[in-house]
Amino acid sequence: MGRRSNKEERQEALRRYLRINPFATDEELAEKFKVSVPTIRLDRLALGIPEVRERIMAMAREARTRVRGVTTEDIVGELVELQPGSLGISILEITPQMLVQPAGVARGHYLFAQAHTLALATVGAEVVLTSSARVRYRRSVYAGERVVARAMVKVKKGNACLVSVHSRVNGEIVFKGQFIIITP
Amino acid sequence: MGRRSNKEERQEALRRYLRINPFATDEELAEKFKVSVPTIRLDRLALGIPEVRERIMAMAREARTRVRGVTTEDIVGELVELQPGSLGISILEITPQMLVQPAGVARGHYLFAQAHTLALATVGAEVVLTSSARVRYRRSVYAGERVVARAMVKVKKGNACLVSVHSRVNGEIVFKGQFIIITP
Repeated sequence: MGRRSNKEERQEALRRYLRINPFATDEELAEKFKVSVPTIRLDRLALGIPEVRERIMAMAREARTRVRGVTTEDIVGELVELQPGSLGISILEITPQMLVQPAGVARGHYLFAQAHTLALATVGAEVVLTSSARVRYRRSVYAGERVVARAMVKVKKGNACLVSVHSRVNGEIVFKGQFIIITP
Repeated sequence: MGRRSNKEERQEALRRYLRINPFATDEELAEKFKVSVPTIRLDRLALGIPEVRERIMAMAREARTRVRGVTTEDIVGELVELQPGSLGISILEITPQMLVQPAGVARGHYLFAQAHTLALATVGAEVVLTSSARVRYRRSVYAGERVVARAMVKVKKGNACLVSVHSRVNGEIVFKGQFIIITP
């Protein structure tokens, strides 16, 4: 009886958590809810929530229809949310090809390219040109990590836009960037 | 008689010019010396100076032997000069794959990647980590253009290095960057 209500509580919490963190993997969810990965899979099945890859694909299909100024192929990472002129989110999975040898960490310009292309898409104009950028690397990123970048249009002044991007791995900030983008 | 000494003067000027601008193409030289491209080719033949591609390859072979901290494959563009701890030069030819559609200009993160990887190589340490970067895009870059990036280590303080990079097309600055690089 008690166990059943635990399970229901957990599933309700899981549903709420995924609404805010739709990109969490089963592994991350298992750790968060202190259960096994198969348990999370059964919970998702019971709730009718598809696996992370499918959730991302569905959001990506939706987001892609709103891209202007760059093509979706230009975007480094998978665009999963886009409110042109306001907000954009993309996910970049770090693959072994992205690593600097011999250090074994992701090349910094991949994080830059993810943030930069996301910033351009987030501006949402037909023509976008980057004027300047300031970026800060907070910690090294490793193979297998998923970098979630979130871009926000902070200031619009004339034909210039300031876009701020925060990139996180498991909620921890790994990269911050500010881009001044011109829409001539 | 007069024509011959004109030719000798031009060849001497050409030799001097190429010592300072070893990456000039025959087309650029023809424009600079107000003669035809075949004339430049004959001049180079007379002087025993190989074509630009070969000159770059020879310098690149030499520069590559001095790379530390990154692998030569990591470097975006062709590394043509490297004095570790002091100076580095690389050349990036803009290919159609690097263009943003529909604008038709080179994606800004290629210029960033060229400058960034060059800055890392120029530091010349076994392990290099980027802490932050400030970059400025001065003008758009188009297909077929050759971007010559020049990196200089400006300040060393403890385990941090400030590397300044200027990227030019035909002598005109198209991009400037400053990178803070840590050598732990």
